[in-house]
Amino acid sequence: MRDVFHEQLDSVFGDLATICGEVEQAVRLATEALLTGDAEIAERVISADVEIDRARERVEETAFELLSLQQPVAGDLRVVVATLRMVTELERMGDLSVHVAKIARLRTPFVAVPDEVRPTVSRMAEVAEEMVSKVSRIITGRDVQAAIALGRADEEMDRLRRTSFAELLADDWTHGVEAAVDVALLGRYYERIADHAVSVANRVVFVVTGENPRAVGA
Amino acid sequence: MRDVFHEQLDSVFGDLATICGEVEQAVRLATEALLTGDAEIAERVISADVEIDRARERVEETAFELLSLQQPVAGDLRVVVATLRMVTELERMGDLSVHVAKIARLRTPFVAVPDEVRPTVSRMAEVAEEMVSKVSRIITGRDVQAAIALGRADEEMDRLRRTSFAELLADDWTHGVEAAVDVALLGRYYERIADHAVSVANRVVFVVTGENPRAVGA
Repeated sequence: MRDVFHEQLDSVFGDLATICGEVEQAVRLATEALLTGDAEIAERVISADVEIDRARERVEETAFELLSLQQPVAGDLRVVVATLRMVTELERMGDLSVHVAKIARLRTPFVAVPDEVRPTVSRMAEVAEEMVSKVSRIITGRDVQAAIALGRADEEMDRLRRTSFAELLADDWTHGVEAAVDVALLGRYYERIADHAVSVANRVVFVVTGENPRAVGA
Repeated sequence: MRDVFHEQLDSVFGDLATICGEVEQAVRLATEALLTGDAEIAERVISADVEIDRARERVEETAFELLSLQQPVAGDLRVVVATLRMVTELERMGDLSVHVAKIARLRTPFVAVPDEVRPTVSRMAEVAEEMVSKVSRIITGRDVQAAIALGRADEEMDRLRRTSFAELLADDWTHGVEAAVDVALLGRYYERIADHAVSVANRVVFVVTGENPRAVGA
């Protein structure tokens, strides 16, 4: 039987997985708004972000209660602090989805992403969304092996970012400066979502094993 | 006389101020590298970042010790957690300076910032550096009024970012896509440094007053 501390911690972990699901939805809808120029979907992402912020506050309050009332030490203490960090990163991933949605909204009814660079940007968005989706399952299942694997998936994002730069800096780029700047910033936002996903996954490794990913063979 | 907990907390605060000084130097040198195209200075910023990372680890260890050994509750507990967050944000500001330095290095011996947009980018860099410098003094002096004022200074950065977009999207922009993308990303990095500076200042308000800035009239 688990003690009160670990039961409460399980409950916080459930909340983290729920928030991660909301972030996944935000990334997916922001991308849909971006690739279709749909202002209404963009607005939905922007206004839904307040829910993620509130959920973050609730997790923080619970984590503080755990620290105050259970006074965990050593490993348990680090787990609670890791939880506080994970929720901050999840919130940030929500903010980055809002940035994507805002670029979509700014260009509507047109589409911010020119056709030539659409496969690269779509794939970036897909990689980001897949990574967030994996993080949800990693949190729920405390899946250390999947978390370690996620750290490596980040490489595709780096490659896509380089490809997108090559495309928009090519001599035959005819879409001008505005579209290029949009694509560069979009690349940055998706890359940061991926970075945070890796970071959250690494913290799950730490929470489960008490070790950083490097120490467990990642 | 202060108790052990508060003495140790003072010491951690001193470390935060030191790290903030290192970040200030990183922002200043990265900007110098950027505006002169000096690869050697860019390298210095990039290689010095490991010191900021190490200092962050030390502050984290001390904060964990405070949590483990002193088992603070309520307000004191929130102060330690706020400290952990401040150090994470300071480290991130260091990373963003490295991003600026890397753009400088990528374009050397040329200068990434074209002459027309140089006043705007220089001023952005100046505002970011001034904000980091103010945060150092805010941490050292636990200066709540200065911290609240800093939250408002952020507006100039927003205005500069809009100006830079107007400049690089103007019809008479002759520097092509690459320079425009560099300037857009640089704007993003300086803006994020400013955001983190405001956030660190807000946490100082919280640490000193136990209230968030909004509650104390910010």
